[in-house]
Amino acid sequence: MPERLIYLPLGGAGEIGMNAYVYGYGEPGKERLIVVDLGVTFGDMDSAPGIDLIMPDVAWLEQNRDRIEAVFITHAHEDHIGGLGYLWPRIQKPVHCRKFTGALGRLKMEELGLSTDAIKIHEPRPAVIEVGPFKVQFVPLSHSIPESSALIIDTPAGRIVHTGDFKLDGTPIVGEPFDPIAWHEIAHEEQGIKVLVCDSTNIFSPNPGRSEAMLANPLLDFITQQKQLVVATTFASNVARLKTLAEAGVAAGRKICLLGRAMRRMVTVANETGVLTNFPGVISPEDASELPRDKVLLIVTGSQGERRAASAQLSRGRYLGLELKEGDSFLFSSSTIPGNERGVIRIMNALSVKGVDVYDTTDGFYHVSGHANRPDIEAVHELLKPQIVIPMHGEHMHLREHAKLAEARGITSVVATNGSVLDLTGDKPRVVDQIDTGRLYLDGNALIGAMDGVVRDRIRMALNGHAMVSVIIDEEDNALPDAWVETMGLPERGRAGVPLVRHIEEELAEFLERADDRTVQSDERMEEAIRKITRQVTMEEIGKKPEVSVIISRLAAE
Amino acid sequence: MPERLIYLPLGGAGEIGMNAYVYGYGEPGKERLIVVDLGVTFGDMDSAPGIDLIMPDVAWLEQNRDRIEAVFITHAHEDHIGGLGYLWPRIQKPVHCRKFTGALGRLKMEELGLSTDAIKIHEPRPAVIEVGPFKVQFVPLSHSIPESSALIIDTPAGRIVHTGDFKLDGTPIVGEPFDPIAWHEIAHEEQGIKVLVCDSTNIFSPNPGRSEAMLANPLLDFITQQKQLVVATTFASNVARLKTLAEAGVAAGRKICLLGRAMRRMVTVANETGVLTNFPGVISPEDASELPRDKVLLIVTGSQGERRAASAQLSRGRYLGLELKEGDSFLFSSSTIPGNERGVIRIMNALSVKGVDVYDTTDGFYHVSGHANRPDIEAVHELLKPQIVIPMHGEHMHLREHAKLAEARGITSVVATNGSVLDLTGDKPRVVDQIDTGRLYLDGNALIGAMDGVVRDRIRMALNGHAMVSVIIDEEDNALPDAWVETMGLPERGRAGVPLVRHIEEELAEFLERADDRTVQSDERMEEAIRKITRQVTMEEIGKKPEVSVIISRLAAE
Repeated sequence: MPERLIYLPLGGAGEIGMNAYVYGYGEPGKERLIVVDLGVTFGDMDSAPGIDLIMPDVAWLEQNRDRIEAVFITHAHEDHIGGLGYLWPRIQKPVHCRKFTGALGRLKMEELGLSTDAIKIHEPRPAVIEVGPFKVQFVPLSHSIPESSALIIDTPAGRIVHTGDFKLDGTPIVGEPFDPIAWHEIAHEEQGIKVLVCDSTNIFSPNPGRSEAMLANPLLDFITQQKQLVVATTFASNVARLKTLAEAGVAAGRKICLLGRAMRRMVTVANETGVLTNFPGVISPEDASELPRDKVLLIVTGSQGERRAASAQLSRGRYLGLELKEGDSFLFSSSTIPGNERGVIRIMNALSVKGVDVYDTTDGFYHVSGHANRPDIEAVHELLKPQIVIPMHGEHMHLREHAKLAEARGITSVVATNGSVLDLTGDKPRVVDQIDTGRLYLDGNALIGAMDGVVRDRIRMALNGHAMVSVIIDEEDNALPDAWVETMGLPERGRAGVPLVRHIEEELAEFLERADDRTVQSDERMEEAIRKITRQVTMEEIGKKPEVSVIISRLAAE
Repeated sequence: MPERLIYLPLGGAGEIGMNAYVYGYGEPGKERLIVVDLGVTFGDMDSAPGIDLIMPDVAWLEQNRDRIEAVFITHAHEDHIGGLGYLWPRIQKPVHCRKFTGALGRLKMEELGLSTDAIKIHEPRPAVIEVGPFKVQFVPLSHSIPESSALIIDTPAGRIVHTGDFKLDGTPIVGEPFDPIAWHEIAHEEQGIKVLVCDSTNIFSPNPGRSEAMLANPLLDFITQQKQLVVATTFASNVARLKTLAEAGVAAGRKICLLGRAMRRMVTVANETGVLTNFPGVISPEDASELPRDKVLLIVTGSQGERRAASAQLSRGRYLGLELKEGDSFLFSSSTIPGNERGVIRIMNALSVKGVDVYDTTDGFYHVSGHANRPDIEAVHELLKPQIVIPMHGEHMHLREHAKLAEARGITSVVATNGSVLDLTGDKPRVVDQIDTGRLYLDGNALIGAMDGVVRDRIRMALNGHAMVSVIIDEEDNALPDAWVETMGLPERGRAGVPLVRHIEEELAEFLERADDRTVQSDERMEEAIRKITRQVTMEEIGKKPEVSVIISRLAAE
């Protein structure tokens, strides 16, 4: 059978989050595989209450573990590396990355008690990592975290460029600038680029992206104008922004204090790995609290409204000895990820109650995106001249728009979402298979399947409330005439004015008294009847049907 | 004791939603009262799962019912009238409004089986409604629903203008245009305006608001350019927009079909009350499905992503015989209310999967807001020259910004949030009391207090899962050695690999065997011990502590 080149997204194609992509080369069904990124996404109350992390189901990878050569991590954002510690035990192959990413990856492995031996650190291009039929190079690209890298994946069927997350920034403050000459070279050596698998996040942003360096002056002006304490929040991993903010603070005559574990960790790792140099000295919260208010800049976590991060804590009251006051200034040097609006607004209002003036990036002065905008994506198509464009890192509407853009430029393109297996060997990509994909939920420390019903039941309890019924069947298979009912998350009284629980108990007692042997002897029949009565009474009383759990205790004859 | 004029917001001040404001005049503690608006807000999964509607707790009004003269409704948006049917039985006073608002109010009363006698219809100024010490006039203002009206409330202590929701629109398509001459008159008759209680929603929008009439040409151009079926969604109550859309559709050679009960009802009521004239004829979904795709414009509900509205239904599949196809166009002629982003994005992606092209109002061509922007608010301050400005209809940050704006213009202003009682008699408002306010939740058909714990328990079950334990105490006060455990919303297995339920049962059996009489005889001690063991085992097994319900069945001696 002829060999073929395949592409299979397991996460990140049809959603923004939990990126995981598979490339394979070899005979159909026997392709040797590499995995690019093992990310997570975050649950929300609407779709995954109580779930700590969501990651791609890697069952297919587990089943095909002997075919996997290695894992590559493009950069250390959680949606690319966050699943590493949880999923690695199911894959157990070498993990290749650059040093900053690797340092954070090691921490993730250590936190879960895993060895860090699998993590292999590499220099960027021209260094080449040979794994099975693949020759892979890390190529620096700018993004909102240091060391984000595209992968050049050379295969017997041609060259793939997998962009990872990127923007075109010639002056990124931290990390390597975008290097058009290097990319021109990449596009023209070998046989040129067969497939560009490309970030689609900002495909709907019509203007060219702006450089991180453009923020230095506006931020300095902003901080200089403030008369009291200034707090700035941004993504902890945006090390370049932290540096820009810190330098602006120092230039405005302030001391810098970092709040938030994630942020301090990022700066430490960035320093230790040498990707961050000349970061201004920082002071402790205790020292900050003793300085005059106009001499301090706090740089804090929680730009997305996270309830337990420093921003939220400061908005609620005293935190680590620091307290915001009327006339202080709070800057969101960040954009709000869709879905996080409520949390951010909650903080803004809490700050307003304290008399703190809130500034955000409405005018674009205090934040730039880490992703390539539409004209930048077009420029990349132009520069790399790929034969095929496969949009990734986007919801369906982003992928579709990106594919339309490529097609309009005469480049073959296809929307491939999670689970689609594309054969990239020929001139046009062909969907050759559809793999069952899904999501794993981290709940506490248990990994459960998204379709296991656990989360479905939680959502139902949250929407409908929960009634629990206990009935007892004695040693002679007779139902005791009493039922014990408890409710949780249901109104205490309904239409009849009597306690709902008592009303249900009365109806159940009546049922138990006349239940025939056939019913009493079957758990299933009993449960069905009890559930029905409980739901009926509750419906009459409060107009909605609760979830019902029935516990039947059968007393054993002694 | 000298008489005084008071203002008391019960809802809407410190939030956008569930508006309810009280004005009083008389001796302190004996003021005669009027209520302005009885609105609702909508629950979400984060803060109020399963709750159908949220409305202000009117306990204070109930306690002071004999002091209430009347209720006035400014307009028929749900956040102003939605609580009428539920709260009226606690107030039982005449409800004054204009005809369109009144017609919708009557429907709300009828739906709950209430008489509509309390609803009194009035003509706008110069008609005056005298109730107790108040003389009230409805003054037409433009907004995104017909007949939105400000109230002029003349009291012995001076004139109040309560704006309700408004924008300054000289060409609102449906309803009365903003009339600066009338407002000039209002500002200059009597002693001028003492207090302006003013909409703050768009205080952060820096540009002057735009007229509804500006949309006609862009919408016509848009529809004309589309080659297949066009679907447009907007707020059902935005009758002017419905008309603009329908007329653009007709001008583009299409038949109009309205989908969504709320929308058809609005058009019917607007027609019947005469506020809407010359609305183009509409066709049924059946007829629409038989016409060529380029001859139909669907105008549909669900612009906020509501799961059961027409937009969501169409995005998922066939709906009333209609099905969207590749190349169809879907227009959001609306803005997304903060917090609704996820639902809207879900629809956009579902449409993308179908190959439907989605258009929104990013460029501002297809939607204008119904609220006054910052420069418009300034213009109103200027035109009315009030002695005092009290910002309302806004979250805390909106109210604060509005107050700052007024103060900067030399007008006394104060931020008063729900529950604050302001004395407006003197030159400056004074906070003289703080009333306990809260929220009522409509759950099914039960009205419960937000602090009753029902919703708290639901959220906890959703986040933590729920374990139920049944134990039996026999006639001689001995615990049977078995415990029966069920879980809902918890992983089936944990660290130990055995079913979680069995593991808990084993630990509980051990406890029951050695439990002493003192423990067994006390429900409280039993529950505490059982809860503790259950949480401990679950924590060890899956790393989180569930909610635990314990049912103790004590068998009565026969």
